[in-house]
Amino acid sequence: MKLSILKQQLNEAIQNVSKAISSRTTIPILSGIKVDVTMQGITLTASDTDISIQSFIPVEDDRQTIAQVERPGSVVLPAKFFVEIIKKLPSANIEIEVRDQFQTFLRAGSTDIQMVGLDPEEYPILPSVEENQVLTVNGDLLKTMIKQTVFSISSNETTPILTGVLWQLQHGEMKFVATDRHRLASRSATIEVDSDLHFYNIVIAGKTLNELSKIIPEHTKVDIVVADNQVLFKVGNVLFYTRILDGTYPDTSKIIPNQYKTELVLDTKSLTEAIDRAYLLSREEKTNIVRLQTKEDGTIEISSSSNELGRVTEQLEVKRFDGEPLRIAFNSKYMLDVLKVVECEQIFIGFTGAMSPIIIKPTEHVNSLHLILPYRTTN
Amino acid sequence: MKLSILKQQLNEAIQNVSKAISSRTTIPILSGIKVDVTMQGITLTASDTDISIQSFIPVEDDRQTIAQVERPGSVVLPAKFFVEIIKKLPSANIEIEVRDQFQTFLRAGSTDIQMVGLDPEEYPILPSVEENQVLTVNGDLLKTMIKQTVFSISSNETTPILTGVLWQLQHGEMKFVATDRHRLASRSATIEVDSDLHFYNIVIAGKTLNELSKIIPEHTKVDIVVADNQVLFKVGNVLFYTRILDGTYPDTSKIIPNQYKTELVLDTKSLTEAIDRAYLLSREEKTNIVRLQTKEDGTIEISSSSNELGRVTEQLEVKRFDGEPLRIAFNSKYMLDVLKVVECEQIFIGFTGAMSPIIIKPTEHVNSLHLILPYRTTN
Repeated sequence: MKLSILKQQLNEAIQNVSKAISSRTTIPILSGIKVDVTMQGITLTASDTDISIQSFIPVEDDRQTIAQVERPGSVVLPAKFFVEIIKKLPSANIEIEVRDQFQTFLRAGSTDIQMVGLDPEEYPILPSVEENQVLTVNGDLLKTMIKQTVFSISSNETTPILTGVLWQLQHGEMKFVATDRHRLASRSATIEVDSDLHFYNIVIAGKTLNELSKIIPEHTKVDIVVADNQVLFKVGNVLFYTRILDGTYPDTSKIIPNQYKTELVLDTKSLTEAIDRAYLLSREEKTNIVRLQTKEDGTIEISSSSNELGRVTEQLEVKRFDGEPLRIAFNSKYMLDVLKVVECEQIFIGFTGAMSPIIIKPTEHVNSLHLILPYRTTN
Repeated sequence: MKLSILKQQLNEAIQNVSKAISSRTTIPILSGIKVDVTMQGITLTASDTDISIQSFIPVEDDRQTIAQVERPGSVVLPAKFFVEIIKKLPSANIEIEVRDQFQTFLRAGSTDIQMVGLDPEEYPILPSVEENQVLTVNGDLLKTMIKQTVFSISSNETTPILTGVLWQLQHGEMKFVATDRHRLASRSATIEVDSDLHFYNIVIAGKTLNELSKIIPEHTKVDIVVADNQVLFKVGNVLFYTRILDGTYPDTSKIIPNQYKTELVLDTKSLTEAIDRAYLLSREEKTNIVRLQTKEDGTIEISSSSNELGRVTEQLEVKRFDGEPLRIAFNSKYMLDVLKVVECEQIFIGFTGAMSPIIIKPTEHVNSLHLILPYRTTN
């Protein structure tokens, strides 16, 4: 293997695939990045078995020659060192050559680097994905849908299925659901897709989705290929493979109420700031408990208290108030997590009773819904 | 105690004094900030016994009325909550009132806060400082002198005196010295001061100096008052008290050579980048060992190697090379620490032998000097 390649393009491709490198891998070869060079271009592969990422650098694009390949070949290079040193090389062009026993030589300006390469034959082969279920979505929408649901997954590994986000597709509507049993987030969107295409129980690990979000640039289309036990995302020249979590996601549709005893519409920013101040105090008590109650003058009061530190009381105007007076307590951190991602000026909150689910929805559209279970408190 | 005060000025003063709050204090009252209100203004005090910071907010400055005091008084408020909540209050003006048993009420816009205050009589009184040794220095210079020395202090608490920076003043020359026995940093500056004023063994903890740096704004004069066992820094309306470390700082003057076997002058940026790349590899070996050797063609080679990962070799032009050929190994992290703070385009490095001190100095002035002991290596 022998080639010269532009540093910038190599660096970008390395940064993309490095998201799949785990520092705690038990399979030594997976602490490396596989480099495959053909006359068409360079393919980099990294994997932690849950996620595999492949990035392709063509020898040329519309604007310029990116690489000149003298001799094709393959090698596996130590990931951490490779990722860091390429970024810091002093010249725009890098020469790479693999010699005996996968010893790899890099030269850039007056810097010479020798890397202990490993045999690419030992690198696991990525499972092939049958392309019979393919859909294309807007990358910005996909990132928003991930952001608005992924924070509600469970961090408890005893129920692995809840550490993922459920994906469903039916009649051209794609829906994401995440829950940790104390709260739930759901977000749906209409997408242009063959109406026959559907799936019901695709669950993808939350941490995988966070990594996926990072490699999707703005204003990009993402092709999604759904296979039996894995999903492949195609983002430009990057292929992102993830396995689907085993198990059946619980049916959450029944716990979402559609009638409320009390309905509020509030200014999102004012509510966020008021709860944030109450949270500061509740956090010191480690409970995050904040109370919300309706007042006779039509406002609401948000409060938190600590025996050691004191009390925060917030008076808040409401835009709309229907139904019964209310006194309820909830985890302010959960509420802030929702308010940070809703992206709307006004927010609807529906209450079904002091011990029943709280529903939070943007007023501008019906695509997203968040649920928080209240706290039982003594007063 | 009852007053109203502008949020911005109160917040700035709180941020300044909060640098003295330790999260691990064993004295409960010191987890609070003391607030003293007179008709002239508001004084905030925080202390962790090593450092005490006092900030004064006058009731008015040249431009505006900052506070309106209705009733003077004092209280101690819980620091962490006080620091965080003031920053997040929704209005430009804050009303503060202390009622029975130091219960403190704050109102800002539609936010009401109650804080459990403590008795100010229980707060320790700051030791008084005799103002017989006073000097005034440029704040920017002081920050630079701290930055160029403090990284060389020892982190080993078994020799407490080395966890500080030595300050000396003699004939109008102020000098800072720090060493951890493996490296040494010294920086001096001529300051305008009464030539009678001198001190030889003022040692101030490194972490204290880092906190001091943070509260010095740009282009400010700092008054320094040196007393028997403490130093007071006056920065605008902020008073920063620190104790002087006990003990006698070792005499380091004898270990600094003034003759060299090999002398190099190098471009600082090129050298920094080359060592940084070599460091990447040496860091993986946990030793940080990098080798430097002179070549017959008048260049130098910087290299590091790892059995598992490979080797980095850097070829570097020299601006000047005098003396014997050289082969030496040193801790690349120590060298990078120096190169990051020297602030000069070209750097002088003097070598006194493979096992003797390496001296690093800027070429543009003689005010700073760094010393690194080399590593003994097998080849």
